[in-house]
Amino acid sequence: MTERVGFIGLGVMGRPMAQNLIRAGYRMHVCARRPESLEPLVAQGAVACASPAELAAGCDVVCTMVTAGADVEAVVMGKAGIMAGARPGLVVIDHSTIPPATARRVAQTLAARGVDFLDAPVSGGGQGAIDATLSIMVGGHEPVFARAEPLLRRMGKTVLRIGDSGAGQVAKAANQLAIVLALVGLAEAFTLARASGVDPARVLEALRGGAAASRVLEAMGPKMADRDFRPGVEARLHHKDVQIALDCAAAVGLAAPGAAVAAQTFNALMARGGARHDSSAVLTVVEAMRRPQASGSSA
Amino acid sequence: MTERVGFIGLGVMGRPMAQNLIRAGYRMHVCARRPESLEPLVAQGAVACASPAELAAGCDVVCTMVTAGADVEAVVMGKAGIMAGARPGLVVIDHSTIPPATARRVAQTLAARGVDFLDAPVSGGGQGAIDATLSIMVGGHEPVFARAEPLLRRMGKTVLRIGDSGAGQVAKAANQLAIVLALVGLAEAFTLARASGVDPARVLEALRGGAAASRVLEAMGPKMADRDFRPGVEARLHHKDVQIALDCAAAVGLAAPGAAVAAQTFNALMARGGARHDSSAVLTVVEAMRRPQASGSSA
Repeated sequence: MTERVGFIGLGVMGRPMAQNLIRAGYRMHVCARRPESLEPLVAQGAVACASPAELAAGCDVVCTMVTAGADVEAVVMGKAGIMAGARPGLVVIDHSTIPPATARRVAQTLAARGVDFLDAPVSGGGQGAIDATLSIMVGGHEPVFARAEPLLRRMGKTVLRIGDSGAGQVAKAANQLAIVLALVGLAEAFTLARASGVDPARVLEALRGGAAASRVLEAMGPKMADRDFRPGVEARLHHKDVQIALDCAAAVGLAAPGAAVAAQTFNALMARGGARHDSSAVLTVVEAMRRPQASGSSA
Repeated sequence: MTERVGFIGLGVMGRPMAQNLIRAGYRMHVCARRPESLEPLVAQGAVACASPAELAAGCDVVCTMVTAGADVEAVVMGKAGIMAGARPGLVVIDHSTIPPATARRVAQTLAARGVDFLDAPVSGGGQGAIDATLSIMVGGHEPVFARAEPLLRRMGKTVLRIGDSGAGQVAKAANQLAIVLALVGLAEAFTLARASGVDPARVLEALRGGAAASRVLEAMGPKMADRDFRPGVEARLHHKDVQIALDCAAAVGLAAPGAAVAAQTFNALMARGGARHDSSAVLTVVEAMRRPQASGSSA
């Protein structure tokens, strides 16, 4: 518990994850582009560092929670990046959702410097991060996982080594593929109900009680029933993730027509300006594929 | 509780539903094409009737749980059907999943004879029927629902009047649309994992712990991970249901590309001879859209 841990990426997910590590007694080091991201953590005793390189130089483990593959590569291999400050024996744990191929490339680059890497994307959303109930899907060498596991268990409830480097990201791609298809299903379901003159709130209640019950329904169904698209999970993130899943499928020679429909639905949502709306706003894309209503229609 | 109740359609769902009504003290009348379907219920005290007409003549409420719209129309309006024996004041409750338009037509036909009708499709599967934890989605007049509700609550935990005649079937179509899209998402997710050399059983465990957790995952995920397609829910039923959802969407002028992909996936499963396999066998359709593997491949 006296390990020195660095955390880079202190957003909706990263901040509560880092706070759970502080609470667990880890000596936290943080670094962020925006000073206001650092403040709550420094107030809890974290050490602010000027760059990922400086942070890495003073830590035994560095966690990253940024957005896309390019962000991870910049933070690790860019100017004043983690690699510039890392000593052999450092463990880098990336919690971002990025392509498995990028994770493998970063792992190989770090391995050449004697630095260990785990891809460790998470599922469970902001609330799961706060409650430390995330599902954490890990790819990498077993001994490195064993060393990191106690730390990961301070942030997640389901902590699983899926396989070698990249396997965590494959599991996350599968996870996101399941979620976005479920979302498209709900968007079409609620629009069908509304277009048929049926109260979506009643349909939500019915779905909750039967075989359609799901965490996606609990999180997104009320937003769809109320047409309230404040995030939540920003649609741009699922847009990125479904593209990762499609790219993975193409890489292994798999057709995925369901994922393709979901990707196009999210493309349409981006085109409509919905990037920072909640992901449940895919409802509006489905609604736009509906016969115009006569004025004064009940639906 | 002294009401005389008839039950027609004593399969995987109907039998346990009727048995729950017997346990609750209703005087049960049954009728089936195959004598072996009657036996367990007669052994519990149910009265066997020769036809739906004879059954209806001796009952205050008749429940039906058959397969498709044509089956409901035959049982209600066919030769020696319910209508042939019904007296004014009878309540017919159909638990089958059929098109809303068919439910409305049956309701209108019965109303002309003074017979009340509720569409009351259910969700929750065979186990939900046994445990009386079904979600029951009801369409029809409020006073008729109020009269039927105590009986419905002996078979289901979530019993909701969704709206007027047909509204229960609209909710069920929405429910099934959500389920089949979730199924396609899981089929693509597990195939992506396998094709990437990742153990689907580990992926299943990770998905269960995060935002992808769902009742569909619990019921179908293990079958997909193990490639064990014994039913469960026979694929021909979801095949029928997704077509109902597509027809409903067309009727209200709604494009539903997600439902279309699911429908095509189930069409392909029917074409492959999977009608009576578990619905999770849609996995095999996705697997067939994958690059052939070199012999001895790990995946």
